[in-house]
Amino acid sequence: MNKAYQELCELNKEIALLGSAAATLGWDQETYLPAKSLKFRAEQLSYLSGKIHGLSTDDNFEAKLRAAEESGAANSTEAANIREWRHHFNKSTKLPQELVERNSKTTSHAKAAWAEAREKNEFSIFAPHLQDLINLANEKAELWGYDDEPYDALLGSYERGAKTADVAKIFNEFEPKVTELAKQAVAKSASGKPRKLEGDFPIEKQQILNQEVAASIGFNFDAGRIDTTTHPFCTTLGPQDVRLTTRYYAHDFTASLFGVMHETGHGLYEQGLPDDDYGFPSGSAVSLGIHESQSLLWEAHVGRSRGFWNKWFPRAQELFPQMQDWSVEEFLQTINQAKYSQIRVDADEATYDLHILLRFGLERKILNGDIDVADIPAAWSEKFQSMFGMKPKSNTKGCLQDIHWSMGGLGYFPTYTLGNLNASQLFNAATQDAAVKTSFDNADYAPLLDWMRTNIHAHGSTYLPQDLMMKASGENTNPEYHLAHLKRRFID
Amino acid sequence: MNKAYQELCELNKEIALLGSAAATLGWDQETYLPAKSLKFRAEQLSYLSGKIHGLSTDDNFEAKLRAAEESGAANSTEAANIREWRHHFNKSTKLPQELVERNSKTTSHAKAAWAEAREKNEFSIFAPHLQDLINLANEKAELWGYDDEPYDALLGSYERGAKTADVAKIFNEFEPKVTELAKQAVAKSASGKPRKLEGDFPIEKQQILNQEVAASIGFNFDAGRIDTTTHPFCTTLGPQDVRLTTRYYAHDFTASLFGVMHETGHGLYEQGLPDDDYGFPSGSAVSLGIHESQSLLWEAHVGRSRGFWNKWFPRAQELFPQMQDWSVEEFLQTINQAKYSQIRVDADEATYDLHILLRFGLERKILNGDIDVADIPAAWSEKFQSMFGMKPKSNTKGCLQDIHWSMGGLGYFPTYTLGNLNASQLFNAATQDAAVKTSFDNADYAPLLDWMRTNIHAHGSTYLPQDLMMKASGENTNPEYHLAHLKRRFID
Repeated sequence: MNKAYQELCELNKEIALLGSAAATLGWDQETYLPAKSLKFRAEQLSYLSGKIHGLSTDDNFEAKLRAAEESGAANSTEAANIREWRHHFNKSTKLPQELVERNSKTTSHAKAAWAEAREKNEFSIFAPHLQDLINLANEKAELWGYDDEPYDALLGSYERGAKTADVAKIFNEFEPKVTELAKQAVAKSASGKPRKLEGDFPIEKQQILNQEVAASIGFNFDAGRIDTTTHPFCTTLGPQDVRLTTRYYAHDFTASLFGVMHETGHGLYEQGLPDDDYGFPSGSAVSLGIHESQSLLWEAHVGRSRGFWNKWFPRAQELFPQMQDWSVEEFLQTINQAKYSQIRVDADEATYDLHILLRFGLERKILNGDIDVADIPAAWSEKFQSMFGMKPKSNTKGCLQDIHWSMGGLGYFPTYTLGNLNASQLFNAATQDAAVKTSFDNADYAPLLDWMRTNIHAHGSTYLPQDLMMKASGENTNPEYHLAHLKRRFID
Repeated sequence: MNKAYQELCELNKEIALLGSAAATLGWDQETYLPAKSLKFRAEQLSYLSGKIHGLSTDDNFEAKLRAAEESGAANSTEAANIREWRHHFNKSTKLPQELVERNSKTTSHAKAAWAEAREKNEFSIFAPHLQDLINLANEKAELWGYDDEPYDALLGSYERGAKTADVAKIFNEFEPKVTELAKQAVAKSASGKPRKLEGDFPIEKQQILNQEVAASIGFNFDAGRIDTTTHPFCTTLGPQDVRLTTRYYAHDFTASLFGVMHETGHGLYEQGLPDDDYGFPSGSAVSLGIHESQSLLWEAHVGRSRGFWNKWFPRAQELFPQMQDWSVEEFLQTINQAKYSQIRVDADEATYDLHILLRFGLERKILNGDIDVADIPAAWSEKFQSMFGMKPKSNTKGCLQDIHWSMGGLGYFPTYTLGNLNASQLFNAATQDAAVKTSFDNADYAPLLDWMRTNIHAHGSTYLPQDLMMKASGENTNPEYHLAHLKRRFID
């Protein structure tokens, strides 16, 4: 390691220390902060993020970065870190302060307007703000630069290196097949008349089951924990400190359990990143589409599988006596139902991607100016009808349902479906190994986790997402594996 | 407010933001931090405290401080802030970096040696480290400066403006009287044969009672909370964010309750400081001796009083059915027993100060070189015998029992007894007001809290502790009020 690279590392360590302090304050805000201290917490976080932004974008950073680039990297990890630091430096410094502040003001107003519009089912309240956000997104895209279309720049903020045309190609191949498959799955589920959960599932018992499951699939509770919040999340506060959260419903223990398995998937990825590279690209998750592949792997491929419940159903019956007259088969049928829903976050595995494909298509048109803001509700409705065979009941249950746009998150949605596709593809690749497959069937997930540790987690951000997919599975993201998975689960 | 003062305020606001972030990390470390992330947490805290130290001691701080001093203060609050900032700046900058680092290394070794010495009951393991700590304390005292004796400089670190001779005068007057009073109290308690608590007190029920009591005496749970830790404490993370902790014993609900009332007393003081001056001397508690007066006021004067239990005992009986055949009288006798104990932290109100008086006398001799380290066990034993009528059972239960010296905390102990004396004196002053007294007798503590808000909390550190006592109670700390309180509680 040469001196220039080392100095760049020291500066980035300082930034990571400040970032981890801010992350801790953020976690506390969601879990334990007393109501009246929200305002001061915002002041603390704004101070820290100002410091972090300053250190990562000032002349000193650039000088150290340039020196490291000129001295050259001693190995591929150093090269990847320099590459990623340059990428983020350019991205952060291309937006003038004026725009950053305008962005913050615009989203803050837009969020309030969105909440009101959703409450009142009046798209027109949100429309002018959405127009502002679209203009801003286009401004940012122009400043960041893009190859083919402005959407590239936005998508690339969430999925490093992704290009709209490539994603569109994948999604276009995927869409008709998954739409048809969803239709069949919904019909089959409806005819099966699955049983409903009944009675009360005490929260303490749910916590016991969640904790046992998370530990058994490999979450290290000496380097992490689970708390309760309204909106579940996973956040990393340090190299050995991964905090998950979940929420509980007294009438349905599976909601918190699958929530915990989902966040545990994120947490296993974070716990599997190289500790010594904490805060560096080589010690950080590479993209949302890869992160989501890990959460979905454990929630859907493991958590909703027959082998998993062959092992865990007796334990659930022990904790929840009202489950004692259920068979594993009945339970699997209940947790793996396909059903069209108006609301994305209520959707099951079979229909979830339809929601995303709809949003991706619309966002791309919006950014390219192919559709006016005022026409979004109609376009949403038309596409929804064609995919789901029904109209949205209202704008509140249609184009106003998600918070993402109001936060300026145009370009975020496709990472959910990329996550689904990657999860199935990586699961398929891992289970090509006979030992992984046999263990999986016997509900022993250590070999599966090992495979992910070696092929995904250990690499941090040294490979771009699609290069990582290629290295791990032998090909770029390919929808066939997810289609095959859905067919096995819902149709066969 | 002139420009120079305003700039000094802005700098101190920044320091307060960093300090509050560090406090949050510290709180998390004690409450929820996963075991493996201790090392990284130490790195984060060391980074933040380095930043804070840098900002509060560098040339920029001094220049701004000097400019504010030269411009003059617009009012007494500004004058007090400038006075205190100068005091702390001088104190922090008088120690060279080399000594600060040596201090940190010495205490770190001393803590380990103390733990081993205590474990093995071998004073000789700790002795050389204690000698190092004494040398260091003397070095610091010389650098900080003092009027009469080195102990002044140490005591003054915990009790702003206190002088050893003044404290000694108070304690010398107090000691023979409290020693005699303790003797009578112990004899009287023994003859009363108090009942013992029996059975299990479920922690969830203890939490309910603690929460109700803390809220009813005025703790604002929208600006604070209670969590569980091995060692109870109160810490402030922001102007509206005061975190208390406690621990639970299944066999004794009063331990956590009195613990919570003690920490609530600290918390009420913190919640009563001026929010807008958060992080400034005018918005900060003035000293340990005043802070402890607030915790003891609520724990001892309120929590162990007849009026309090006339109101709360029925609720305790509701929560803990095994208390149903107890009378309030029996319960008061049980919670207000006087009994000599070897261990300071196990001591009751009547005997607690004897432990402190012993330590104060010894510390002063140690610092003045009137006693050798090797002779401490014998000196401890002799004094203990004369005060408690028994010998320490071992050094572990004698001069090795407290962690304070191993942390370099020479000069800290007297603040406990100052707290006791101040609590009784302030309680007496407050209840001179007939409305406060009547409400107190009826277990309505709002007027008592109002009195403390107005006479103590609102002033932050604008007055020195003894000036504050004078302003609030009409005289400096005077042991007569505490003696009268103990006599009423244990003898009459």
